[in-house]
Amino acid sequence: MSESSRSVRLLLIGLGNVGRRVLELLVQKRAVLSERFGLSLILVGAADSSGAAVQSAGLDAQEIVRLKTTGLGVAEYAGAGRPGSTALEVVETVSADILLEAAPANLKDGQPGLACIATALDRGMHVVTADKAPLVLAYPSLQNLAQEHNVQLRFSATVGGGLPAVNIGRRDLGPATIERLEGILNLTTNYILTRMAEGQSYTEALAQAQAAGHAETDPRLDVDGWDAASKLVILAHSVLGYPATLEDVEREGITHLTGDKLRQAAAAGNCIKPVASAEKEGDNYRLRVGPIALPTEHPLAMLGAEQMGIVYHTDINGQIAASVVEETPLPTAAAMLRDVVEILELHSARFML
Amino acid sequence: MSESSRSVRLLLIGLGNVGRRVLELLVQKRAVLSERFGLSLILVGAADSSGAAVQSAGLDAQEIVRLKTTGLGVAEYAGAGRPGSTALEVVETVSADILLEAAPANLKDGQPGLACIATALDRGMHVVTADKAPLVLAYPSLQNLAQEHNVQLRFSATVGGGLPAVNIGRRDLGPATIERLEGILNLTTNYILTRMAEGQSYTEALAQAQAAGHAETDPRLDVDGWDAASKLVILAHSVLGYPATLEDVEREGITHLTGDKLRQAAAAGNCIKPVASAEKEGDNYRLRVGPIALPTEHPLAMLGAEQMGIVYHTDINGQIAASVVEETPLPTAAAMLRDVVEILELHSARFML
Repeated sequence: MSESSRSVRLLLIGLGNVGRRVLELLVQKRAVLSERFGLSLILVGAADSSGAAVQSAGLDAQEIVRLKTTGLGVAEYAGAGRPGSTALEVVETVSADILLEAAPANLKDGQPGLACIATALDRGMHVVTADKAPLVLAYPSLQNLAQEHNVQLRFSATVGGGLPAVNIGRRDLGPATIERLEGILNLTTNYILTRMAEGQSYTEALAQAQAAGHAETDPRLDVDGWDAASKLVILAHSVLGYPATLEDVEREGITHLTGDKLRQAAAAGNCIKPVASAEKEGDNYRLRVGPIALPTEHPLAMLGAEQMGIVYHTDINGQIAASVVEETPLPTAAAMLRDVVEILELHSARFML
Repeated sequence: MSESSRSVRLLLIGLGNVGRRVLELLVQKRAVLSERFGLSLILVGAADSSGAAVQSAGLDAQEIVRLKTTGLGVAEYAGAGRPGSTALEVVETVSADILLEAAPANLKDGQPGLACIATALDRGMHVVTADKAPLVLAYPSLQNLAQEHNVQLRFSATVGGGLPAVNIGRRDLGPATIERLEGILNLTTNYILTRMAEGQSYTEALAQAQAAGHAETDPRLDVDGWDAASKLVILAHSVLGYPATLEDVEREGITHLTGDKLRQAAAAGNCIKPVASAEKEGDNYRLRVGPIALPTEHPLAMLGAEQMGIVYHTDINGQIAASVVEETPLPTAAAMLRDVVEILELHSARFML
């Protein structure tokens, strides 16, 4: 590790499929972060449903992974575990530079993520979230809070995992007008429809998607379109500058589709895909989520079971498509790490002046 | 225009296919730049092969477009024209905040772009370039110069035009290791091979690509692979952290290919595409440019005549593909504009603290 590495203190809440891979990346990428960016990331607190572990000198990420792999909670961490402590208590009491929020999405009230994010911003921490719910429910107020405290709120992991869907829209198309966007933003439903078209049953395909760590804990969030609608709401706020809510999204699930119907479409030269779209209509956008028959030459029709993608139709940047092959939740964790690095690079640029 | 718009002074050198569209965008996007970013961009100097025009209160971009469209040079600009003045003289003598460099790529010695960029950085201007040659010949020293003067050198327009190929690699894959990248980075050769597979002759296809403004002034830069090799060298420096030169690129042109050969490949289920690739071999990358038979399901095989694309194979972000449909050079000009906005956003973030 470089001697001049800058130490940055992290809190991590949520140790499920994504959070555990964040821990693995902290170990795997330690040398790269030091060499390329001069960063030394120190995990000073972590929380899951069992409780928390806090250690200002830094927790051993590998030890937490070991605990989780053996079915234990982080509260069992020897010498630093705090059984029964909540994620919010950790955010309220531990000093850190960045909160990583990877709790399960709770579209009812956004908790526990929403309170943790708001508290972290209020305490002057940057926030990187993979949890969509707080953004879906409170994007404008969270961004205001971040601005008020001169900190960053980043969320490139929330839409498309490793795919930089948000970043392309926000940064690369800044001066453009987006006339339309279309995306396969939910991997589970794309996985299921692709496998069903190949002959699997709905139940088999869903079970496989869950086994691979793709599906939300409650599959209705995926198959009824809530997850894709949430991502569309986040894109609307962050990329389209259009403050939509879940109620603004016309939403259709995939559970009424049969293998026969999928194969009939294929025979007619189409491919039924779960598409989220936003179409400009005057000053507004029409937001929709649901299965659509796409011609096989459409950029989204070509995406296989473990792919997600997005197409931006713009006025001045042409038509830009991007896709990701995502076989595990690792790229989502990697997206959180890129947000961390980007925040710190931006702030080191500021410090230079 | 918003009353609080921040005035930013631009110089533009090179008024060919790209530069003229930059002028058009300055007019077309004036309101958007003010509303979204609080920016008022003022063109204080412009240069082409006829000479220059300089006006500190701002030149009329539309008037310059009119001059160029009627076959005149910018030196004919009434009241501000400077016949015979060079681009370098403008950069040396006019005060501005950002240099936009859109001169033709000159791989022999990088001029006039190289001297203009170095001078601008030295004078404390940010630089946005669509001209590959200076970067190919002097990437490290130009970046050092930028750093020394605390200014930005941006070049997202140089690789793939409107496609954010550089930005995805640099920003979104920062902590990742790129095991391999493959791209269709030269539109002209993809255009020609696609049209030849459809039955056109090489000459017809080249003429069409030139008419659409896609081809370099000297077609050998495209069809002998120099343009794609240049882009690969820029990606190597900026994304792979691998300081390559043009001599490091194994390069094969497309002029030996026949329509028969292209159709034979298609009959065998393949598609011959002009591919630039970098493959990690230990600490180095093997860099190659040339026609390759891709299976039809390959993400680059699907790209039509007016598309470019790139695929990043990474260790932690999955496999990320991105493509653009680019029917004119407008998206390349739009890429220069996005670089301008990004530089100014970064600097306004700094000013906030």
